[in-house]
Amino acid sequence: MLKIGLDAMGGDFAPEAAVKGAVMASAEIGADSKIVLFGDKERIEAILAGESCPADRFEIVPTTEVIEMGDHPAKAFQQKADSSITVGFAHLAKDAIQGFASAGSTGAMMVGSMQVIKPIDGIIRPTISSLVPTVAGRPALLLDVGLNVDCKPEVLNQYGLIGSIYAESVLGIPNPRVAILNIGEEETKGNAQSKAAHEMMKASGRFNFVGNVESSHIFSGKVADVIVCDGFTGNVILKMAEGLYRINNALGGNNNKFWEAMNYEHVGGTPVLGVGAPVIIGHGCSSPLAIRSMILSTEHTAKAGLTEKLRLAFTD
Amino acid sequence: MLKIGLDAMGGDFAPEAAVKGAVMASAEIGADSKIVLFGDKERIEAILAGESCPADRFEIVPTTEVIEMGDHPAKAFQQKADSSITVGFAHLAKDAIQGFASAGSTGAMMVGSMQVIKPIDGIIRPTISSLVPTVAGRPALLLDVGLNVDCKPEVLNQYGLIGSIYAESVLGIPNPRVAILNIGEEETKGNAQSKAAHEMMKASGRFNFVGNVESSHIFSGKVADVIVCDGFTGNVILKMAEGLYRINNALGGNNNKFWEAMNYEHVGGTPVLGVGAPVIIGHGCSSPLAIRSMILSTEHTAKAGLTEKLRLAFTD
Repeated sequence: MLKIGLDAMGGDFAPEAAVKGAVMASAEIGADSKIVLFGDKERIEAILAGESCPADRFEIVPTTEVIEMGDHPAKAFQQKADSSITVGFAHLAKDAIQGFASAGSTGAMMVGSMQVIKPIDGIIRPTISSLVPTVAGRPALLLDVGLNVDCKPEVLNQYGLIGSIYAESVLGIPNPRVAILNIGEEETKGNAQSKAAHEMMKASGRFNFVGNVESSHIFSGKVADVIVCDGFTGNVILKMAEGLYRINNALGGNNNKFWEAMNYEHVGGTPVLGVGAPVIIGHGCSSPLAIRSMILSTEHTAKAGLTEKLRLAFTD
Repeated sequence: MLKIGLDAMGGDFAPEAAVKGAVMASAEIGADSKIVLFGDKERIEAILAGESCPADRFEIVPTTEVIEMGDHPAKAFQQKADSSITVGFAHLAKDAIQGFASAGSTGAMMVGSMQVIKPIDGIIRPTISSLVPTVAGRPALLLDVGLNVDCKPEVLNQYGLIGSIYAESVLGIPNPRVAILNIGEEETKGNAQSKAAHEMMKASGRFNFVGNVESSHIFSGKVADVIVCDGFTGNVILKMAEGLYRINNALGGNNNKFWEAMNYEHVGGTPVLGVGAPVIIGHGCSSPLAIRSMILSTEHTAKAGLTEKLRLAFTD
């Protein structure tokens, strides 16, 4: 039995949106999977009743506290020992659940990832990543998208390997094309960081390095399945896409496959990669649909055995 | 009389597109302005005849050579002494023209800007910038967009002042809002570079610094009129916008004001800022409409007295 934990108290519209999303996901997850809800038991059961959903479809781990967006993440994680996030990570650490997802405090989720679950041995810096849609039909993985804003080349090189393993095992892309985001196609282009990373990645031999990818091709899918960049650049890309999505939506221009795929609700949250268990962080404003996608993505990551594959790759 | 020089041989579709663009612009420039065409006189005159445009509407400076895209910019600039770009810069240096625009070799245009026209005293690093459309209706200035990929904070701080003067004098925006591109609204967010630049810009007092702008607001116009970033990030933004423009266009989604404004043909090229005369570089694939916009933008920059204003600001 695969157990997927969800912070029922996480997100701007929790617990309603979280629980409703869990109900949606419960109809789609595997017969061998179960969703474990962490949060206010009474409120969760009331929402389930409102959805006419039998409570025994879920496992509920009652918690009494919530880490709020305004809380100091590290302090709150410790002090609110009975918060849904803290308890969720305790369960994840002892393998009582095989993945944990939350649309709550990103900071607290990172504290749990780094301090309770901990980086996989050999990984210098875990990363947060994002799936971006492409017109080629399959998504590309962009990493880092905001965790490590100043990256040494060896960190970016590791992101190439982490991304390649994710794309192959979770996205099912055989021999994924890994590129470094750069401002020209030629090897000699770029800033000091991207040039040094290019050199290391080219020499790595651990993944299918295809060279530089320019940002004009992030969404074309023509060049790369895995796009490596520092967290500053990745965050700029992500937020720019969000901004243009909103503008295009206001103009009524999102009624097509590409822009629909740009909707974060379908993306399934931001995987934290390089720590010892599947952790996914959702957008604060997650709707039930977004929560559903995040749960399915967490289940998928756990099923794919990503953590074990990463451990194996980095024990060499 | 204001004379605006155009490299008639520059661009993938030169001289046809360049000359046709000049014909379009000639109907719109001021009565006191004249377009000076640098290039193959016979071919230029043949195109003008084909357009039923009297040749005396232009001044033609005959040149016999062309710097090709494959040429080494610095070498070609010297060795092809009778190239349209080299001769154009010689005219600009002696004030025979008051601005120069080309859709030809970006490298050669930068060689002319830096070695013939030269940086304005006090400006550490000139910059190339781009106007980006916003849904607020007026464009914002993004700089740098690819020239200086590794920027010291003092360079970014100067970009704030340069951009502010451009926005006020050329775009006519009173007291323009200047922001540093960053990955959070809070002062403490960012990478080492953006945090240091934020601090310097906040302390500068030379322009209306409004703090950080996130990339989600580049195109909203809500936060800033001038967006400062290093050339790596700026280039990523520009090319990502181009990529999404192409995707949206292929989906038939560009039939509205915002995406139309994203069309580079309306943007008018990339101003080189911080050198001693107006220089504008156009997209290699410039259409006549793009050339027209570039000429008008060059005229506008010359009329606004941008160079003198920059000189004055940096003599302090």
